[in-house]
Amino acid sequence: MAKKKSKSKASKGGAGKGGKKNKGAKAIKPKEIKTGKGMNAMEVGQELVRMFNAGQFTEIEDRFWAPKIRSIEGFGVAMAWDGRKAVRAKNHDWMSTHKIHGASASGPFVGATGFAVKFSMDVEDTTNGQRTTMEEVGVYTLKNGKIIQEEFMYGG
Amino acid sequence: MAKKKSKSKASKGGAGKGGKKNKGAKAIKPKEIKTGKGMNAMEVGQELVRMFNAGQFTEIEDRFWAPKIRSIEGFGVAMAWDGRKAVRAKNHDWMSTHKIHGASASGPFVGATGFAVKFSMDVEDTTNGQRTTMEEVGVYTLKNGKIIQEEFMYGG
Repeated sequence: MAKKKSKSKASKGGAGKGGKKNKGAKAIKPKEIKTGKGMNAMEVGQELVRMFNAGQFTEIEDRFWAPKIRSIEGFGVAMAWDGRKAVRAKNHDWMSTHKIHGASASGPFVGATGFAVKFSMDVEDTTNGQRTTMEEVGVYTLKNGKIIQEEFMYGG
Repeated sequence: MAKKKSKSKASKGGAGKGGKKNKGAKAIKPKEIKTGKGMNAMEVGQELVRMFNAGQFTEIEDRFWAPKIRSIEGFGVAMAWDGRKAVRAKNHDWMSTHKIHGASASGPFVGATGFAVKFSMDVEDTTNGQRTTMEEVGVYTLKNGKIIQEEFMYGG
């Protein structure tokens, strides 16, 4: 399924290849985007979704976080935490005031620099007992099979 | 709703603020992320979704594309087109071999560097008559109220 789509998409990338509408204009050449060696964005994305849905959160960190990972929280927070230690501290801090009653990941949506995952979470703020369903998209940037950046974007 | 969420999320950003679990360790300070002047990521994201669903594709380009916009196509293509002219040519080329029977945007999911939008499209490849439903996530990077980068990530 994914293969079929990337195929149909591939024609989108073939600017000027078909040539039908190219009235002799100089072709503007696109640049190749690479994530380096190791597992590619499709492979890491699929593994991350599978592991998240299996509750293997720590295993995701150990396996895919680059040592210098940057984690960005979205609108309303708009801050970046740099390095495994800082990101772990942020997550730990958040977990100390929230209880996750249910969570699921869907995707991956696979790009050139990395991939995106859609998360749904049923979360309780344990400081006030308020329970909400959060929808967010995690955007992951990959280098040599490791996540060098993640950004969480919040749904309305 | 969105406000409520960014609020609940804000506590995620307050590393060390609660202090409950901070056993005297040096707080690792996160860095602020800004998109500059003009409309913010929430505002541009909401407008883009609204305009897309109203079929105002050209209007989106005119209003929100930075002159040096970079457009990246995802997995299987993995290339970047730089500048309005190149991005328009890519889109025009794709449109010349595809017919969109239906399209909708949902979101925005709002981050710190920009926002993400989920697209569903019912598309026909007019070169072979094949019709597919494509799910993709567009990840937009904002600077001073303009889109300086968009990346399309394809769903499976």
